[in-house]
Amino acid sequence: MKIAGISGSLRKQSTHRGILRAVAGHLKTKGVEFVEVEIGDFPLYDQDLNTKGIPSVVQSASDQLASADAIVLASPEYNYSVSGVLKNAIDWFSRVENQAFNGKAVSIMGASPGMGTARSQYHLRQILVFMNAYVVNKPEVMIAQSTGKFNELGDLTDQNTIDFLDKALISLINLSNQLNQ
Amino acid sequence: MKIAGISGSLRKQSTHRGILRAVAGHLKTKGVEFVEVEIGDFPLYDQDLNTKGIPSVVQSASDQLASADAIVLASPEYNYSVSGVLKNAIDWFSRVENQAFNGKAVSIMGASPGMGTARSQYHLRQILVFMNAYVVNKPEVMIAQSTGKFNELGDLTDQNTIDFLDKALISLINLSNQLNQ
Amino acid sequence: MKIAGISGSLRKQSTHRGILRAVAGHLKTKGVEFVEVEIGDFPLYDQDLNTKGIPSVVQSASDQLASADAIVLASPEYNYSVSGVLKNAIDWFSRVENQAFNGKAVSIMGASPGMGTARSQYHLRQILVFMNAYVVNKPEVMIAQSTGKFNELGDLTDQNTIDFLDKALISLINLSNQLNQ
Amino acid sequence: MKIAGISGSLRKQSTHRGILRAVAGHLKTKGVEFVEVEIGDFPLYDQDLNTKGIPSVVQSASDQLASADAIVLASPEYNYSVSGVLKNAIDWFSRVENQAFNGKAVSIMGASPGMGTARSQYHLRQILVFMNAYVVNKPEVMIAQSTGKFNELGDLTDQNTIDFLDKALISLINLSNQLNQ
Repeated sequence: MKIAGISGSLRKQSTHRGILRAVAGHLKTKGVEFVEVEIGDFPLYDQDLNTKGIPSVVQSASDQLASADAIVLASPEYNYSVSGVLKNAIDWFSRVENQAFNGKAVSIMGASPGMGTARSQYHLRQILVFMNAYVVNKPEVMIAQSTGKFNELGDLTDQNTIDFLDKALISLINLSNQLNQ
Repeated sequence: MKIAGISGSLRKQSTHRGILRAVAGHLKTKGVEFVEVEIGDFPLYDQDLNTKGIPSVVQSASDQLASADAIVLASPEYNYSVSGVLKNAIDWFSRVENQAFNGKAVSIMGASPGMGTARSQYHLRQILVFMNAYVVNKPEVMIAQSTGKFNELGDLTDQNTIDFLDKALISLINLSNQLNQ
Repeated sequence: MKIAGISGSLRKQSTHRGILRAVAGHLKTKGVEFVEVEIGDFPLYDQDLNTKGIPSVVQSASDQLASADAIVLASPEYNYSVSGVLKNAIDWFSRVENQAFNGKAVSIMGASPGMGTARSQYHLRQILVFMNAYVVNKPEVMIAQSTGKFNELGDLTDQNTIDFLDKALISLINLSNQLNQ
Repeated sequence: MKIAGISGSLRKQSTHRGILRAVAGHLKTKGVEFVEVEIGDFPLYDQDLNTKGIPSVVQSASDQLASADAIVLASPEYNYSVSGVLKNAIDWFSRVENQAFNGKAVSIMGASPGMGTARSQYHLRQILVFMNAYVVNKPEVMIAQSTGKFNELGDLTDQNTIDFLDKALISLINLSNQLNQ
């Protein structure tokens, strides 16, 4: 099994990159391969550009996603919704022939000083209906009051949350196994 | 009175740019100034970049918006939500000191071959709660079955829809006047 | 296999009851048992009432649901969301010990003269996250411009739509089989 | 000025009834009349019933609402959305000739042990677009971690929250004044 992760925040020391590092650590102990897919160099989606072809940076990212069995979206909440950065990446992915999300299990994971990105996660779920991905229902990963649960490098340091992520990954793996049967 | 418009689609011959041209035409006859604000050169939002300051392309766009009394968002639906391009612009605008949406009336206008961007418009409404803008309730501008209502240059050619946009603009102007009192 | 259906409209000649009749017809040819669960006699949810126990009308409906492998929600759109009637039923079901939606596949089916209940279906999807049900992604069943596709008794008469429902049921059965493995 | 309030929870000692009592207290000091509108005796919405006329319990409640300048919806979150009870009331109100929500300012107020009904409030906002009501953007009233902020009778006892409600009411009154100009 192989799982791909995307951070919807580009900041180097983002807590969402930290979530993906914690995810990678858990998966290593389970013998599951993990790859982080970068979306920070994508151009803004423009159909005129798309008409000329899929940019190589998009194609290679989509290929990485397509090679995975399941996907973790570490998704911050910007202005009550998904970050434009992540949405822009999805807008591109939807145009690539390999349809990298199609039929896969997804786990959405978010952290914020407030209510843990709840407002944005249901937007992302609606988007993923179109992409034909199935998002894990339980547990939802909304890391609320995140200040103090991550250090200044964005590393997740709160042990309860670390343990919780492991449960979320087990749910993701289970759903992925069900959908791939 | 001055109204600013943004197209959430970057395509040159986008129907959403066509909507803004129709809007501009109507406003001209009403003696209302109109400015189209470009967002296609914005970088992807990155807090590390933001820490260094607001990019000049963002600042000048935000200044244009801030100088307007009301805003038209010509917003396509990509993958059941707001385009990443438009969301990315809003993510930047939310970081600019002038808070260009704050307290203003907004009209959302969308067109699609299907149901007219209905799925995305409620996402945009949720985003605009955070931006403290008030979106016109009636009429909602969802131009369904858009094929045939625009020509190949993206110009709106359907007279019923052209007339309908005029009603929508009157609602926008009325709401703007109420909110500015 | 057994599938349960609920109509979110109480009207005798509702198109949503008609959808369930069409569903029942399809399932019969597949050798799948179908049961329609009535929710029209539920009291309004009141925690004070709940404290005294689950009303028998709720318990027996929930038992019917719990005995099914998958669920069809024929869900009209009232005022841009799920009908209060259906939401009230779900509010009760969420309090019953058998947790009748838990882990099941659900197909949402709606019809309207306008855009086919699109606005309400994503609300219902969010509700079903809490109930831990997985809603079929493709196809979404939004029967738009429904006038003329149903007769005055609420029977679905449009052959294309009848055929489409069959595809939707195959997707439901497939997802149910995957989730139950 | 007159403000009407509705509790979306029927429980006698509901915190949402407590919110309305706190609202009533604040309004009294401002010389603003307040009326609580009861929806607990409404029948489940059924178009067959509606065809026979509007039930008197619905008509009188709608008349109370219609006589108010602005509306407070004390709205709990049930299963990630608006309570069926409140939605059922709105489904009825939408059928009454006086269109009691039309053009009015609304404040949504919710409390929960978790994140303060955030998930449900955006559903209610979408519903109110159809009803043509304008919901206050700032402040949003999401009383999180509500346990300990209300006593066992449902009275709001937390002074910070009591003060916060006063600010929310001032925003409601201001928006109502703007919309009525």
